[in-house]
Amino acid sequence: MVEAFIFDVFGTLVDWRTGVARETAKVFAAKNIEADAGAFADAWRARYAPSMNRIISGERPYVRLEQLHLENLEDALQALGIYGHFSAADKHALNRSWEMLPPWPDTCACLQRLKQEAIIAPCSNGSIAMMTRLARFGGLPWDAILGAEIAASYKPAAEVYLASARALNLPPEKVMMVAAHNGDLAAASAAGLKTGFFPRPGEHGPGGTRDPAPTGPWNAIGTDMSDFVAKALEVRHG
Amino acid sequence: MVEAFIFDVFGTLVDWRTGVARETAKVFAAKNIEADAGAFADAWRARYAPSMNRIISGERPYVRLEQLHLENLEDALQALGIYGHFSAADKHALNRSWEMLPPWPDTCACLQRLKQEAIIAPCSNGSIAMMTRLARFGGLPWDAILGAEIAASYKPAAEVYLASARALNLPPEKVMMVAAHNGDLAAASAAGLKTGFFPRPGEHGPGGTRDPAPTGPWNAIGTDMSDFVAKALEVRHG
Repeated sequence: MVEAFIFDVFGTLVDWRTGVARETAKVFAAKNIEADAGAFADAWRARYAPSMNRIISGERPYVRLEQLHLENLEDALQALGIYGHFSAADKHALNRSWEMLPPWPDTCACLQRLKQEAIIAPCSNGSIAMMTRLARFGGLPWDAILGAEIAASYKPAAEVYLASARALNLPPEKVMMVAAHNGDLAAASAAGLKTGFFPRPGEHGPGGTRDPAPTGPWNAIGTDMSDFVAKALEVRHG
Repeated sequence: MVEAFIFDVFGTLVDWRTGVARETAKVFAAKNIEADAGAFADAWRARYAPSMNRIISGERPYVRLEQLHLENLEDALQALGIYGHFSAADKHALNRSWEMLPPWPDTCACLQRLKQEAIIAPCSNGSIAMMTRLARFGGLPWDAILGAEIAASYKPAAEVYLASARALNLPPEKVMMVAAHNGDLAAASAAGLKTGFFPRPGEHGPGGTRDPAPTGPWNAIGTDMSDFVAKALEVRHG
């Protein structure tokens, strides 16, 4: 019996690329910078995994994702040769674009449906503050905010999934990790959680998704989020 | 500018005595135990502060409130001479009465009103799991679950209030701690938070409240929760 569904957020539930590009485009326009905002969002995001890997490996102590995002932003601005155009306040404001990401059109209704049956919470690499503000921005109806910060590490470290289950007083097998990313689910499954998958073809913009189909024997697999919810509720009930 | 309101829960937002007595009365009836369920709730709760004080003082490492509640339940059952009537499963079930406490009639509407303006979260001694299930039971519309567990200590330790503000990326002065208990507010104020008070005359049943009136210069004071919300929104807006 699954008593809680915990979710990847960036990509799975919200459209980070559109949201970040939108805020970036505003700032670029105000500064008369001619650069592609979508490509900049990709460049910023490309620095995400390497920056977390240093913390997962123990090379660096845990700092919140806001801090990594800020460092990665500075690096991406330098790579584009426009670092000097941005004050500390500019960078701080742009960094907050990660708290203003649009949910995919089906996200909130699907979460509401699952919430009627079980606990729902994010299990994201975003901090409590980011996830809280992102939920208020997009109307994500969480019961609690779990994930990286309560574990002081980053996915795919097993501790992030296990700490999230433990915070709910649940054994891992009563918690389903849900993501549009197979790597996230492989790690959750190895940690003993149930797993749920559906694709998000639009995540990477015109380039398409990197995870068009499930690559593992996940417990509930949907063709889209709505189909996933139906499958997940079947799994939950037996 | 107050950007978040964090709340005491037991007594301030939910009627713990009625909820615990109701579940206790069911169990007592099933076991043909003739004892006053309200008095038993009081006896159980009387062991709450001493058990937390051992953790605040450092005498004992942090354990979640569920664990303290269970130990205190066993102690209260022994004091009443009925310990032998309760299996481990019985005690576990009774312990979960703390996740099934009725909100006071004005609680949910008042929280919804504040949520339109600012972040709202519990800052309770209850664990993440308890607060999550209690919110689902009563419909408390939290943005996040903060409080004792993320600080690994118990109120009135300053760290509980400070960790809650820090989790929201806010300085203490942008967070208002709200409680019907003056002691909670004195500690929050000493830690640098804003403070809000309203009385809950029914908290201790026929014995009445221990905090009928504010005893400090709290930033927002209401005659009841609804009046408090009006005063708090004035404070928030400057």
